Amino acid sequence: MTTYQISTELITNKKEKTPADQLGFGQVFTDHMFVMDYVEGQGWVNPTITAYAPIELSPAAMVFHYGQAVFEGLKAYLTEDGEVQLFRPDRNFKRLNDSNKRLCIPAIDEELALNALKELIRVDRDWVPSAPGTSLYIRPFIIATEPYLGVNPAKNYKFMIILSPVGSYYKEGINPVKILVEQHYVRAVVGGTGEAKTAGNYASSLKGSELAAQQGYSQTLWLDGKENKYVEEVGSMNIFFKIDGKVITPALNGSILPGITRDSMIQVLKSKNIPVEERAIAFEEVLTAAKNGTLEEVFGTGTAAVISPVGELKWLDEIIAINDGQIGEVTQMLYDTLLGIQYGTLEDPFGWTIKL
Amino acid sequence: MTTYQISTELITNKKEKTPADQLGFGQVFTDHMFVMDYVEGQGWVNPTITAYAPIELSPAAMVFHYGQAVFEGLKAYLTEDGEVQLFRPDRNFKRLNDSNKRLCIPAIDEELALNALKELIRVDRDWVPSAPGTSLYIRPFIIATEPYLGVNPAKNYKFMIILSPVGSYYKEGINPVKILVEQHYVRAVVGGTGEAKTAGNYASSLKGSELAAQQGYSQTLWLDGKENKYVEEVGSMNIFFKIDGKVITPALNGSILPGITRDSMIQVLKSKNIPVEERAIAFEEVLTAAKNGTLEEVFGTGTAAVISPVGELKWLDEIIAINDGQIGEVTQMLYDTLLGIQYGTLEDPFGWTIKL
Repeated sequence: MTTYQISTELITNKKEKTPADQLGFGQVFTDHMFVMDYVEGQGWVNPTITAYAPIELSPAAMVFHYGQAVFEGLKAYLTEDGEVQLFRPDRNFKRLNDSNKRLCIPAIDEELALNALKELIRVDRDWVPSAPGTSLYIRPFIIATEPYLGVNPAKNYKFMIILSPVGSYYKEGINPVKILVEQHYVRAVVGGTGEAKTAGNYASSLKGSELAAQQGYSQTLWLDGKENKYVEEVGSMNIFFKIDGKVITPALNGSILPGITRDSMIQVLKSKNIPVEERAIAFEEVLTAAKNGTLEEVFGTGTAAVISPVGELKWLDEIIAINDGQIGEVTQMLYDTLLGIQYGTLEDPFGWTIKL
Repeated sequence: MTTYQISTELITNKKEKTPADQLGFGQVFTDHMFVMDYVEGQGWVNPTITAYAPIELSPAAMVFHYGQAVFEGLKAYLTEDGEVQLFRPDRNFKRLNDSNKRLCIPAIDEELALNALKELIRVDRDWVPSAPGTSLYIRPFIIATEPYLGVNPAKNYKFMIILSPVGSYYKEGINPVKILVEQHYVRAVVGGTGEAKTAGNYASSLKGSELAAQQGYSQTLWLDGKENKYVEEVGSMNIFFKIDGKVITPALNGSILPGITRDSMIQVLKSKNIPVEERAIAFEEVLTAAKNGTLEEVFGTGTAAVISPVGELKWLDEIIAINDGQIGEVTQMLYDTLLGIQYGTLEDPFGWTIKL
């Protein structure tokens, strides 16, 4: 049993709340944040809930130079009976420690982190938005703070949790997106950092997205870095294909992020007796299915959107239309089920939700 | 012709200087730094030389989350006649812009950057150390500062230059290092960010170094990410092999950093009529050469050490001793030539040095 004491320094002048329809994503932050420091020789010290405010760092802080930075993303939801609930938060802190391991960052106490998060949300409870589809986005992250220009794991870190009330992802209804299959740029390779949630993975993905946007596509479908052949992820989401009644998603091969939404979708599919396979899937297989009419649905999964149906794929000069650009039946069912569980309008047979 | 005005805010209380034998690397910083901000719609604004001091950033600053961070490393040297000179600084700012392009960071004005650097060193001129082998390490870097959790190129950045007087890399003489050939982890892959000098590349390299150190090896030799077959880099340096009288270094294939020291070594070799080849080199070729007695020298090149001779390579269970663990003739010649040019004790037929 770990013992620890979280200090709390509450502010007195609360900020004004942004109206729900102006929230957007990740731009508005609550009144408080959680901070804990790592000091070599002492471990993680001084867990504190304090005012949301800028942090001071040396220009030589290692995060600026050598990128030791990992993060998580999850959400808190207001239920119809006015309670706040979290969705599988234990999985996020476990994955944060997996990312830490890959980047040589000292592990955090997952129990402490979860308790700190709950306490932080209690303090900023009035920031959890109530309009349909809105939620409180939660961003735990760790950065290397030691001021040193040597290429080594840092001796000092900051673990922080910040909270951002976010608007409905699908304010204007779910519109399937157009995706470009990337031919040149690579997101990750086996042996690299693809399965860790580290800042560098996102920086390296920006160029592909920029070029896709120039062609009118909203995201990139990433192929594997070794053979440029197997499907890996879409944008910053995991990807699923429904082909001839079966749902297929790339297996976690070491270069794919083990998405918590991905895992939840697989469990929901199994519970509904819909066949689901985790395995390598060559893009050629998708192409063949499209041509013989068995490519029924394609969708991405992630915390922000939950599910993002794909209406069109562009691969070299070939354009593949999926389900006439409409959201598919299974995609819709998964979306309704997960959101139902997250907002507490459906029963949670999986034990995924945790009330504050 | 670009017009710009660099503001200068000098401090009055100068810090005490650290004695040359206690400098180490990248731990001591001078009195001033250069800062310039990027504001969407305005471009790069407010170039300023100001006190070296902590910077304030929002906890949501994008560098902490999505890793848009690039940097450079170069040195200023005090010559015997008391002048300060830089080594190919134009190449560093050009490469910084190449890195910017890969990470969707707006380009800087290279001429402004070089002038700012010169002005900054003039201001902190008394920080350029004079003991043999010491120098002033220069770290230009750019970070994304916009407080936003969306995965997009940021709208705000900071470009900074900080200076660190550094001790002699080889205080106790040049000792060849022991290198472990990495079998599992990968530094970069073609299509990724390997040829950019971005923070994330260094974060992803830490794990391999940690495991090598546990086996008593000081660095990792990285093989390519696609086939795990071709030599790429060593630690955070480029690598050269002298086999049967010829010097070979991996060609710049897209996943290898285009080192400025690497390029300088190639030019010095050519000027001395020593055959040099830039091409793909399978590790098997190195192994075969070691076995038939033609592997004569191995060395890494980079700004910090200039040259780092390799005395031993470990590949799976095979241990390859190189030149009886002694520095080789060509390695020594390259070291002497480059340092001679950098410190102004040798003529600079290449036009590489720039006096302040």
